[in-house]
Amino acid sequence: MKSTSSGVEAFRPEAALLHGLLRRFGKFGAQTSGGITRLCATPADGEARHFLVTWLKEQGAELRIDAVGNIYGIFNLAGPDAPLVMAGSHLDSQIDAGRLDGTYGVAAACCAAQALLDARRAGASFEANLCIVNWTNEEGARFRPSLLGSGYFAGEHDTDYALSRTDDAGFSIGQALEAIGFRGSDPPPRMPIAYLELHIEQGTLLAERNETIGIVLRNWGAVKLEVAFLGEQAHTGPCPMERRRDALLAASHAVIGIRDLADSFPGALHTSAGRIVVSPNSANVVPARTELSIELRSTDEDILTEATHAARPILLAAAANARTELRVISEKRRRAVTFPIGLAETIEQCAVDCGYSVRRMETVSGHDALSLLNCCPTGLIFVPSIDGLSHNAAEDTDPSDLEAGLNVFTLALSRLCRRGTQAFVNNPN
Amino acid sequence: MKSTSSGVEAFRPEAALLHGLLRRFGKFGAQTSGGITRLCATPADGEARHFLVTWLKEQGAELRIDAVGNIYGIFNLAGPDAPLVMAGSHLDSQIDAGRLDGTYGVAAACCAAQALLDARRAGASFEANLCIVNWTNEEGARFRPSLLGSGYFAGEHDTDYALSRTDDAGFSIGQALEAIGFRGSDPPPRMPIAYLELHIEQGTLLAERNETIGIVLRNWGAVKLEVAFLGEQAHTGPCPMERRRDALLAASHAVIGIRDLADSFPGALHTSAGRIVVSPNSANVVPARTELSIELRSTDEDILTEATHAARPILLAAAANARTELRVISEKRRRAVTFPIGLAETIEQCAVDCGYSVRRMETVSGHDALSLLNCCPTGLIFVPSIDGLSHNAAEDTDPSDLEAGLNVFTLALSRLCRRGTQAFVNNPN
Repeated sequence: MKSTSSGVEAFRPEAALLHGLLRRFGKFGAQTSGGITRLCATPADGEARHFLVTWLKEQGAELRIDAVGNIYGIFNLAGPDAPLVMAGSHLDSQIDAGRLDGTYGVAAACCAAQALLDARRAGASFEANLCIVNWTNEEGARFRPSLLGSGYFAGEHDTDYALSRTDDAGFSIGQALEAIGFRGSDPPPRMPIAYLELHIEQGTLLAERNETIGIVLRNWGAVKLEVAFLGEQAHTGPCPMERRRDALLAASHAVIGIRDLADSFPGALHTSAGRIVVSPNSANVVPARTELSIELRSTDEDILTEATHAARPILLAAAANARTELRVISEKRRRAVTFPIGLAETIEQCAVDCGYSVRRMETVSGHDALSLLNCCPTGLIFVPSIDGLSHNAAEDTDPSDLEAGLNVFTLALSRLCRRGTQAFVNNPN
Repeated sequence: MKSTSSGVEAFRPEAALLHGLLRRFGKFGAQTSGGITRLCATPADGEARHFLVTWLKEQGAELRIDAVGNIYGIFNLAGPDAPLVMAGSHLDSQIDAGRLDGTYGVAAACCAAQALLDARRAGASFEANLCIVNWTNEEGARFRPSLLGSGYFAGEHDTDYALSRTDDAGFSIGQALEAIGFRGSDPPPRMPIAYLELHIEQGTLLAERNETIGIVLRNWGAVKLEVAFLGEQAHTGPCPMERRRDALLAASHAVIGIRDLADSFPGALHTSAGRIVVSPNSANVVPARTELSIELRSTDEDILTEATHAARPILLAAAANARTELRVISEKRRRAVTFPIGLAETIEQCAVDCGYSVRRMETVSGHDALSLLNCCPTGLIFVPSIDGLSHNAAEDTDPSDLEAGLNVFTLALSRLCRRGTQAFVNNPN
């Protein structure tokens, strides 16, 4: 990082530690493709969690694991009664995904903690303690909904609901966390005065504009629909075509209808159907039941509402087309909201002080930071993604950009922990 | 059964044994739905196989289990060098399927053996021995291709090919048979002089015409296609719609196109896509790869050829529609062939002698008897299916029809075993 004149901000850059931690975390769930498969609460996730816990303990953190497996490591910088600044992300991944998504934010938070501990040993004084966090099931790949651990912390879900979410094999998160030794019983830490998350962009905006640091000011809203089509199991041989009630045929009409819906709002609506579960899923049996996970995302709340209304007749027509019945299993909406400008400006100033180009932007993808928005001033920092690849083994970011993000993140955390809410450039909100 | 005047045909009907065996087999893999899930080489299949083996041994059969797990029980009725008559079907099932599909044929073969053993104890003499058989993986539900065990016996597959077929979790048949103790090493028995199979119709023809016994003279041809669509894994959030290469979208276009293809040949072509495997199958990931199992079936070989040619542009267009690549993994054709009329007439005579109405018909669905057609005179006997339901937990047949089928089947096996090839009404072919 660019050195600053203020003694308050004297800390050692931790680039080597960052790359070392990313290499270590990258071994847990490594695939021959070069990607990572570290689904929530699988053995690979357990290994990554054990590594994190060991590291936190070695650095002297007070460790807590709450009922849904969120891992907190609290570094006492300012005394037991001091306010808390929280920083982190998630270690779980999609199938065959990149090594940076989530992990970068956790590893960078560790590096920042190391830097602040060093500063404290060198005589710096602090107003707030730093809590590193790894949130459970951010991805929503094995268990849905996504952002489960951070949503639990933010009071969106109670313990019973969170622990009873099941994967497609019928295992609950509770059972899965138990199996890897991460179903905890510690109380979560106190509400922080600020939450910061560092993440790769997962889009192409920063790279296209040749900018290094993105400050998120708004997220796209998302509607997540889980629907089922109920048909009738039959033999694909003798059963006459006109008698069939084919649940995969219905889902196929739905997949195409939902894709076409995006064309009604060019560029402003993203739609997808990424997950389908077919029963009995045998080559010679007309499918009896399909379950489909649908997403609609938009930066514009009105468009999202309109698209959600338009989805219903599409799904009903798909069901009717194959003589099946539509069941809506769940419909969840995450609204498009704005991030507090005070904290955003504080981070922006850190980026400028470090000498990096900076851009205010939106996030289309969900992040744990969105859960925390309801609790405290929350900041989300992006670094460029090469070619915008995400949820893909080839996801990557230039090492110098990773270090730039770490430097801005560490400086912002340093200012927050050393000055408390006084660190905000203007108003925290 | 109706008594006949000939002493040669004196045997005790085994209706009580049939219903008892069906009840016992019905417990292995029983579901709360009332259906059966007894996928090939699963523990439930292992239990059913152990029950069969125990029963065969208790009745004094010489037991053989070949390299692919086919179970043979040879009853010595006519001395070790006498020719063999073979009868059986399969104990594996689809997911949540009926209790009669396959099991009825195995249980009825056991009952027929019991009747012939009784007749022998009562002094009857025989020209041929009777071999009861349970074929491995008829269904093709867990492993593809279907008719695997009978195809192996008929020389269509070698041992390595058969044992290396894998399920969707990557387990091979060899591993799965090993796990349930049914990977055998016995040589299969000698080629039989005739093979008989008794099965439920799985259609509505017999019930609609109020007829009791169907004699199959021909099967529908079938083309079984396994294809994959290769797209690109991406985040369903930030990835722009026009950049996506969505493998589930491609498969959806294919499912609909293949369904619509059936309408080009109304009533003469059945099409289906019953199985889809999506990777990574996560709600917030654009699918990278889908694998789809497609079937085309027709009684008319020319239509089947034409439809197979028409399928290719449909699949290519589906792939292109979603910017994905099409890969044809395998294409297998089972031709429409005729059953030998001599054996059919022999069975027909048995039905008439028993006093049942009889109809010559086709089978749309595949049966192990089709594999045996290349080896020896082969007969396939149908009894009515209530409402034509098949591969469905509610599959059923009236108990009196089950008994009627058993009676005709037993009489035909009795004539074949007692008279050898002399039993054929005219020429065996």
